[in-house]
Amino acid sequence: MSTTDQPKAGKRRGRRPAGQDTRAALLAAARAEFSENGYEGATVRAIAARAGVDAAMVNHWFGGKETLFAQSVLQLPFDPQDIVHTLLEGDRDTLGARIIRRFVTVWDSASGQTFPALIRSLANHDKAAAALRDFLIENILDTIMTRIEADHPQLRATLCASQLIGIGMVRYVARFEPLASSDVETMVAAVAPTLQRYLTGDLGSISSN
Amino acid sequence: MSTTDQPKAGKRRGRRPAGQDTRAALLAAARAEFSENGYEGATVRAIAARAGVDAAMVNHWFGGKETLFAQSVLQLPFDPQDIVHTLLEGDRDTLGARIIRRFVTVWDSASGQTFPALIRSLANHDKAAAALRDFLIENILDTIMTRIEADHPQLRATLCASQLIGIGMVRYVARFEPLASSDVETMVAAVAPTLQRYLTGDLGSISSN
Repeated sequence: MSTTDQPKAGKRRGRRPAGQDTRAALLAAARAEFSENGYEGATVRAIAARAGVDAAMVNHWFGGKETLFAQSVLQLPFDPQDIVHTLLEGDRDTLGARIIRRFVTVWDSASGQTFPALIRSLANHDKAAAALRDFLIENILDTIMTRIEADHPQLRATLCASQLIGIGMVRYVARFEPLASSDVETMVAAVAPTLQRYLTGDLGSISSN
Repeated sequence: MSTTDQPKAGKRRGRRPAGQDTRAALLAAARAEFSENGYEGATVRAIAARAGVDAAMVNHWFGGKETLFAQSVLQLPFDPQDIVHTLLEGDRDTLGARIIRRFVTVWDSASGQTFPALIRSLANHDKAAAALRDFLIENILDTIMTRIEADHPQLRATLCASQLIGIGMVRYVARFEPLASSDVETMVAAVAPTLQRYLTGDLGSISSN
């Protein structure tokens, strides 16, 4: 994933990387530390040391541990705002299809270990849930909701999150067949109408949200 | 949960319980052991010792560790076959509503720790995924699919599982609001059409399942 950020960077052990190299090195170090020690156990200091850079670089590039967690463990190859921009290009009625297609494509192409690592962190640490909420809900889904001017935007966002996280659980963690091996088009055909209704459809009688 | 199985049983340390008392004691011991040591780490011997009964009682009452895991950690207050029977009573067109209502009601009334414990086991141990698949897919959803004679029954079952597990993740593990606090009727109105389509509706173009 991150290698696209540093096309000319080779292995340069013992030399402090600069710029995008630093960012990529921190992402790789963070993935390793979070995987080994969980969200709470991994420290900014240990991640920076592993990357061979000063701990201040974490704040410089990511603002803190939470965003570093979101970007390293979630491993999306785009900035959240790029994802939102791309998803919002095109017909509003096919937004659900674009979201599930992007979700499955991104996670399928990632190592099969990244989604389970995310879920482990989520199940074990409240702060991981906060990081995921910031990334998935606040950065992506809430922005989409605002742009499409949906009613009940937060309920719609969390309903979308439930279906996406559930697909991730069944496809990458529990690996229930045949969903775990279904091709992208089957997933899009099956799941897009669910997301589309959560985004723009009738949610029935909503009591209190 | 299990106290309803042993209305007359008080604390009787040092005395070996009998019958339903043994079953309830094993369920409580299993919950504690699985919670402390995970699926792989918990042994039938340790669970039985904690319950103060012979290890053979585990096989007698549950057939083995997998079923004991499913019944103790999932903590559903019904036998799977009772759930299926209840869910299949009534109109086929409202099956999705009955499933989400039952799912949310059961897990809401359980301790808030039981679903996260399940997910922790699932994320950490392949055998936990097998236990969950046996319980949720084979015992419940596959049976429903057979009774309603759905096409693509396994894809439909795993799609239903994805939405149910995703609701569990957002409501009980990540606790994203407002979905985490939405009342049962809001959940039913929002999610029932999703499950109903996965059960009996058009799934679009299915490539290979």
